[in-house]
Amino acid sequence: MLQIGKYQFQSRLFLGTGKFSSLEVQKQAVEASGTEVLTFAVRRMNLENPDQPNFLENLDLNRYTLLPNTAGATTVEEAVRIARLARASNLCDMIKVEVIADTKTLLPDPIATIEATKILVEEGFTVLPYTSDDPVIARELVEAGAHAIMPGGAPIGSGLGLLNPRYLEIIIEESPVPVIIDAGIGSPQDVVQAMELGADGVLLNTAVSGAKDPVKMAEAMKWAVIAGRLGFEAGRIPKKRYASASSPLEGMVK
Amino acid sequence: MLQIGKYQFQSRLFLGTGKFSSLEVQKQAVEASGTEVLTFAVRRMNLENPDQPNFLENLDLNRYTLLPNTAGATTVEEAVRIARLARASNLCDMIKVEVIADTKTLLPDPIATIEATKILVEEGFTVLPYTSDDPVIARELVEAGAHAIMPGGAPIGSGLGLLNPRYLEIIIEESPVPVIIDAGIGSPQDVVQAMELGADGVLLNTAVSGAKDPVKMAEAMKWAVIAGRLGFEAGRIPKKRYASASSPLEGMVK
Amino acid sequence: MLQIGKYQFQSRLFLGTGKFSSLEVQKQAVEASGTEVLTFAVRRMNLENPDQPNFLENLDLNRYTLLPNTAGATTVEEAVRIARLARASNLCDMIKVEVIADTKTLLPDPIATIEATKILVEEGFTVLPYTSDDPVIARELVEAGAHAIMPGGAPIGSGLGLLNPRYLEIIIEESPVPVIIDAGIGSPQDVVQAMELGADGVLLNTAVSGAKDPVKMAEAMKWAVIAGRLGFEAGRIPKKRYASASSPLEGMVK
Amino acid sequence: MLQIGKYQFQSRLFLGTGKFSSLEVQKQAVEASGTEVLTFAVRRMNLENPDQPNFLENLDLNRYTLLPNTAGATTVEEAVRIARLARASNLCDMIKVEVIADTKTLLPDPIATIEATKILVEEGFTVLPYTSDDPVIARELVEAGAHAIMPGGAPIGSGLGLLNPRYLEIIIEESPVPVIIDAGIGSPQDVVQAMELGADGVLLNTAVSGAKDPVKMAEAMKWAVIAGRLGFEAGRIPKKRYASASSPLEGMVK
Repeated sequence: MLQIGKYQFQSRLFLGTGKFSSLEVQKQAVEASGTEVLTFAVRRMNLENPDQPNFLENLDLNRYTLLPNTAGATTVEEAVRIARLARASNLCDMIKVEVIADTKTLLPDPIATIEATKILVEEGFTVLPYTSDDPVIARELVEAGAHAIMPGGAPIGSGLGLLNPRYLEIIIEESPVPVIIDAGIGSPQDVVQAMELGADGVLLNTAVSGAKDPVKMAEAMKWAVIAGRLGFEAGRIPKKRYASASSPLEGMVK
Repeated sequence: MLQIGKYQFQSRLFLGTGKFSSLEVQKQAVEASGTEVLTFAVRRMNLENPDQPNFLENLDLNRYTLLPNTAGATTVEEAVRIARLARASNLCDMIKVEVIADTKTLLPDPIATIEATKILVEEGFTVLPYTSDDPVIARELVEAGAHAIMPGGAPIGSGLGLLNPRYLEIIIEESPVPVIIDAGIGSPQDVVQAMELGADGVLLNTAVSGAKDPVKMAEAMKWAVIAGRLGFEAGRIPKKRYASASSPLEGMVK
Repeated sequence: MLQIGKYQFQSRLFLGTGKFSSLEVQKQAVEASGTEVLTFAVRRMNLENPDQPNFLENLDLNRYTLLPNTAGATTVEEAVRIARLARASNLCDMIKVEVIADTKTLLPDPIATIEATKILVEEGFTVLPYTSDDPVIARELVEAGAHAIMPGGAPIGSGLGLLNPRYLEIIIEESPVPVIIDAGIGSPQDVVQAMELGADGVLLNTAVSGAKDPVKMAEAMKWAVIAGRLGFEAGRIPKKRYASASSPLEGMVK
Repeated sequence: MLQIGKYQFQSRLFLGTGKFSSLEVQKQAVEASGTEVLTFAVRRMNLENPDQPNFLENLDLNRYTLLPNTAGATTVEEAVRIARLARASNLCDMIKVEVIADTKTLLPDPIATIEATKILVEEGFTVLPYTSDDPVIARELVEAGAHAIMPGGAPIGSGLGLLNPRYLEIIIEESPVPVIIDAGIGSPQDVVQAMELGADGVLLNTAVSGAKDPVKMAEAMKWAVIAGRLGFEAGRIPKKRYASASSPLEGMVK
């Protein structure tokens, strides 16, 4: 069971809703993934014109918790404004804070992210900031009141996986709130690695929507999250430099 | 569907039966893993004394295909003799050929393995040789008539994972028969990596029996095999050096 | 030729002076390394009592540029105070800004580091801040006026090498000022990797002082820096998935 | 000092002479590398027509030990015939045995390589077989009388580096004769890695001849070999999960 603020989830997979080839593929992928949390850019919603077609309209939104994000924000002010807009539209009081430093790496601006987190926590949001894999920044986000932290494995959409598993591991060891690995994941292997490090969950988007078969990949990711979590809980064998017979034959007649 | 010789399997996970702390744990792990193929050392069976307790006795052997192995053999003759003994005992006509070169690395003796494979294929066995990750040896085993090949990821029981994924990938690309990654796997992540490379299956033993919670790890491995296979079939995204927005905002009003 | 602010160096290896087993070993290692820049913690100097023995006293300080650092500082104020103390003692107007966030990881506090950099640049120091491998923070340090930036490969003294070569590469690509890889380097291989990524230099301490033979390791590091730099300039071959004969025999009589 | 059979070398870098853009570049690269051993394909020599231009003619062959190789051989017989031809031409009694299994991977045929090694050792050659990274095959080559063994890091010319450093390390630990890492090296970093594993030397060709600036890369490789060897001898620091201050400040006044 994953608990973030007042929310509880059985599934540890958060799914982004962007860049699917059609709303039908999106819907099937969402279902195949088993996710309970859908994230999306508030700025892609037609919040001010409810008559416009909506990219979430194909989904049964009663079945999912919405996690709006502030994608597109490059300043504290923009992030805060977008978050308030999301709440005013009754989407959810959870918000993924995303303040991007540049368009090439899409890496988060740490200082602005901390600042926006502080403000939104004070305003009563359940705040999940997207952050780098820097353990010091992660710690400051926790001190700022974040309800979970979302360190990136690699640049958004890059599919490079977990560039620095050691720092992610330190973040996980130290964090009193859930750690959701976000950004950069390319395949089920990356998901399992994140979960075996002890992450509380993963957030995926491009790895699913950009796969050749997004629906099948969504299912792959569902099982990858479960496999990785069970593997983490089960306690893997240590690594050894040499072999160790799996069928020891000592004392047997040859 | 995995086909090896005349046998067909839904599950792509082969499980070794050695080194479980008790027959009860073994039984539960076997069930949790969803495996259809159990491997074991012929020399650990009390083939000549059916009154002795048997380490497979707890299992409903009608539900599983048995894959006896020649563990303990260090020469062609020993391997062949053990295989014949297994068939004479009506265990199965499948045989995992394992001719070990030394006790420190437990790496296979390539030349003896090829020789034993030839002999046993001619005698009508369904032969699955354990081999190194050398693509040239793998090719020669195929020419020798192997029905599947089982390259090791790393020394048996080491938990080091896939030491040379590039050569395993070449083996998989080239092989006209199924490739089952055997030996060295330590955790679900290694399983998913093997399956994403395109392996047809994996064989596990120590990674499950040696885990802190073997039954939970067996279940983890079941989902890992499925996640990796689905991920392979679904076609992962390419890796990029830079970011790529998952919620493109071009043309939106800021 | 490496230029940092008004300083020019032939050698691209900066050497820390801490933790050598004796001043004699320190001296020999400094000489074997070929370094022109020695770094040390200002707070380990007996600046207020010139009669006390000094850990640099064995070295001919006319031959080296001193790079005092603010090790031990955990706030902007401490770092600034230590830097001023160093300048007042006529050690050097170069300062390595080091503001540490915690004693377990010794990772830098990004926000305090940026702040201290700004203040010291305005006061006319030549400022080299120690930073994480986060490209966004690196960019902000450049904007703050840093004369070079010193991203860490891994936690100080850990010997883990370059945990995130991809982000270091982005920092190097983007930085208009020299990039000196600092912290975490364990062996000559790490040094060559850093230099092949295009780093302008490396700073070493524990990897030399903690080696079994520090003087020999210092010499190893001298050649490693040179090998890596030449390799970077020479332009390595691309990686290929398959082989390419080094002695092509096409058209030859067999 | 590296000793192979009756030969002694100061330099641990063996250089191939193939694929340079001109004989002049070849000559300068050979000199810059500091090598004492030049390898080349016997079949590229005009052994039967001494009036033809010779691709080694620019080099002062009194300064180098020649290591002819059997490149192009795909059978035991071809390899043996080429070796005898080389000796009959008074090139050298050292021979690098290379029996290739296929043109795509250029990986060695282990069984033929062992066989050819046996024959040539009996005929009095100083034999250096090119082999895979399989420790079992390496052991058999030593038993066959090889004077040094030359495991490949990766397919020839691929530049992939050391695909399986763990098996190379086992080969080095076990081998009573020198181990020269051959094939696959792409850059100075790979060289240093090989030497830090304890290799006695490396053989390079494409990594130098295919670099943008082959002469500069040859010099880079000279220093890389030296750096790696010194680093191996000097004894690197252990890796730690957390930091360790290089300027400990315990007991100092803050």
